[in-house]
Amino acid sequence: MIESLRALFSGRLLTAADDMAPFLTDWRHKWTGTARAVAQPDSTADVAAIVRWCAAHGVPVVPQGGNTSMCGSATPDASGTSLVLSLARMSRVRNIDIVNNTMTVEAGCILQTLQDAARTQSRLFPLSLAAQGSCTIGGNLATNAGGVQVLRYGNARDLCLGLEVVTPQGEIWEGLRGLRKDNTGYDLRDLYIGAEGTLGIITAATVKLFPLPAAQICAWCAVESLEIAPQVLNLAQAKLGAKLTAFEVQSQSCFDLLTEQFPKLRWPMETRAPWGLLIEVSDLESEAAARESLERALEAAFEAGLIADAVVAQSMSHSREFWTLREMMSEAQAKAGHNIKHDISIPIPRIPEFVAETDAAIAAAFPDTRMVVFGHLGDGNLHYNVSPRTGEHGIDFLKNEPAINLITHDNVARYQGSVSAEHGLGALRRHEAARYKSPIELALMKSIKDALDPQGIMNPGKGLPC
Amino acid sequence: MIESLRALFSGRLLTAADDMAPFLTDWRHKWTGTARAVAQPDSTADVAAIVRWCAAHGVPVVPQGGNTSMCGSATPDASGTSLVLSLARMSRVRNIDIVNNTMTVEAGCILQTLQDAARTQSRLFPLSLAAQGSCTIGGNLATNAGGVQVLRYGNARDLCLGLEVVTPQGEIWEGLRGLRKDNTGYDLRDLYIGAEGTLGIITAATVKLFPLPAAQICAWCAVESLEIAPQVLNLAQAKLGAKLTAFEVQSQSCFDLLTEQFPKLRWPMETRAPWGLLIEVSDLESEAAARESLERALEAAFEAGLIADAVVAQSMSHSREFWTLREMMSEAQAKAGHNIKHDISIPIPRIPEFVAETDAAIAAAFPDTRMVVFGHLGDGNLHYNVSPRTGEHGIDFLKNEPAINLITHDNVARYQGSVSAEHGLGALRRHEAARYKSPIELALMKSIKDALDPQGIMNPGKGLPC
Repeated sequence: MIESLRALFSGRLLTAADDMAPFLTDWRHKWTGTARAVAQPDSTADVAAIVRWCAAHGVPVVPQGGNTSMCGSATPDASGTSLVLSLARMSRVRNIDIVNNTMTVEAGCILQTLQDAARTQSRLFPLSLAAQGSCTIGGNLATNAGGVQVLRYGNARDLCLGLEVVTPQGEIWEGLRGLRKDNTGYDLRDLYIGAEGTLGIITAATVKLFPLPAAQICAWCAVESLEIAPQVLNLAQAKLGAKLTAFEVQSQSCFDLLTEQFPKLRWPMETRAPWGLLIEVSDLESEAAARESLERALEAAFEAGLIADAVVAQSMSHSREFWTLREMMSEAQAKAGHNIKHDISIPIPRIPEFVAETDAAIAAAFPDTRMVVFGHLGDGNLHYNVSPRTGEHGIDFLKNEPAINLITHDNVARYQGSVSAEHGLGALRRHEAARYKSPIELALMKSIKDALDPQGIMNPGKGLPC
Repeated sequence: MIESLRALFSGRLLTAADDMAPFLTDWRHKWTGTARAVAQPDSTADVAAIVRWCAAHGVPVVPQGGNTSMCGSATPDASGTSLVLSLARMSRVRNIDIVNNTMTVEAGCILQTLQDAARTQSRLFPLSLAAQGSCTIGGNLATNAGGVQVLRYGNARDLCLGLEVVTPQGEIWEGLRGLRKDNTGYDLRDLYIGAEGTLGIITAATVKLFPLPAAQICAWCAVESLEIAPQVLNLAQAKLGAKLTAFEVQSQSCFDLLTEQFPKLRWPMETRAPWGLLIEVSDLESEAAARESLERALEAAFEAGLIADAVVAQSMSHSREFWTLREMMSEAQAKAGHNIKHDISIPIPRIPEFVAETDAAIAAAFPDTRMVVFGHLGDGNLHYNVSPRTGEHGIDFLKNEPAINLITHDNVARYQGSVSAEHGLGALRRHEAARYKSPIELALMKSIKDALDPQGIMNPGKGLPC
């Protein structure tokens, strides 16, 4: 049957097991499935033709961008009935408009390509996250990706003005608008963003560009307790406003893990405090102006008795080194062995209480664990991770995952937080999300799914809480 | 029949003609309808009870906030079958969280009340528009209101983190989250925002707060042609970044109209140029810093040969006077007599060409008109209005409205713009919007409407393009 699809589009159709293999397992090797074939269309019309064929034959479609999902959003299931639809060959920057401050790109365009294309025109495309060298903008939008600049520029959703989407019926919605204001009916754009390919396939997007800052300078600060961190955030916001482009938190135990795994890395000051804050300031004019603003904010934090110590980066490259301490956390954890990850958000003032309470509950139930907590405090988003104590990092540790998830996420719900802040649901979190949502919310989402994809062929088993 | 409703909720049920009258005509007296009754619930549970009653009896529901719609969104039709559901009595600020920078308010809360409540806590709620003394946050969200700070802070949509909504079945969706990141399923929030009450009734919202700037300073600039305006905008964005909080445009003919109607108002400089630009800078620290930033940007614009002249306000109160010249435009036009309004958006670089071409087309077809063009250039949003020449402002002029709308909006569509930038569709623009949307987009919207409101009782005849 699959051969009848080959003639319907340009691009590639992979059916040999070796050719398909890279598309059937996610990058962290946590999910593996099988598929009838992997289609790599060259154009939006191709995508539409493929989806029409799938609709006619009742074949489930699994859209895939850079295959970097953290929650199995882009991996087919084990049934072998699906078609993986890879957007990788649709990777053109269609247009950059520096007066309108917009860029139109195809879904398979790598995030870093967008950043670079913007920079060559003295513009900033601010979405920035660890996988930026391999993730695609289509996947970023389908999962409403977050990252390290959300505090200033918002999530992927906030950076998108228009979309082109292939519907589950294989029709093309031309919604590539470059308008800042458009109130002419329902917000289809934001419905597709974050829907993880369950309502249609994003094939192109028009995104916002911003003036390119001349410099970013950051500092690490030591704080004696997590309770202080939201106060430092508030002070930094009051002093710096939109110049404050990142506000990250990391526990001292994170630095210990980093040092164990990468002995060249170290906590950058003598004062050893339970928590570190990474604060970044961007300035349109100069590095000196960025540093001056940051130093003034830190002085005010000292005077208010909030921070115990701080080190300001001496240069932009020194700032990049400071970021390395934050960005290597995932890799350090992976290197140490198996661990249990959570991507949660909590209303910011309640974070200290949440962490204290949840740490205690996990320690009581699983005394042989250590907490590895870091994240985007300015967004209320923690990567609240749990590792075994050193030397016990075997796969056995993961048998505790359901119980540790339950402790963590039940507490998240009690604190009115979210069990997926920036990663999406994928296959990993959909059942957990359903546990914490009201029947009304679940029914609303299901009725939208049934209305737009009545055959249920779009990325089944993912995204939609159930 | 209506009396069976009275016992089901607290609050008021108005059935006498005199009591109902203020709710049956919009503030500009452009739309008048009739209704079975006007219900004014006191609580979300009341709203749910009323909607359940309406669903059981097949009674259409017309939600109403401050009754300030520009497009008849909140006025019942002439059938007399509807119930007007006024949110006016649900006007509490439920909570302000200055650490989380969020505020939870009921739908009937007046916009200015939100602004004032935030200011007392040294926070800014940035939504700002002419009707702020009487419009409500529920209506602002239902229509995704825009206004004068969108360039920096976004539309109403961008300022909202969570909603409480009563569904067309009279159930309550508790979506009042105060989270910056939450990727756990479909974006219901943004579906209700801008849906003009056709999918449910917004009863409360959690909105974002920002640091309160210490000062705003603005300047009027004279430019010789509209072609120059986007270049000035780009320069201002590059120099000022997020300090640039407004960028408005106004034709010299607007100032002429202002002067005719309000002789005390005048164009604030000797240089008389075809277009004026109002540029506002906000600063977190001081008025002096705001002025200095603005002056440096204007100097750069002079040096680049972009602006012919400029006057910087001498104080914050002087800045308010400058704003009066912009804000009195609607009133001046109304005072002059009947006129034809358009609320359009166009990709910014194409605005000059659009205006030249459309001005010429209207002048050719209707030589006795004068163009009154002003708006939020930084958002690509023009109030592209048409008045008769002085002395011919009778109601007869409005017979030209369909033809002038057609010329204008056909051109908007050719320039890939929107026929409703910030006002919504209401009863006024839904047919026009449908003319310019693809059958696929219309079908997608209709399938969402049918899925969430299968009885079709929510604000019929409004909002949804058709």
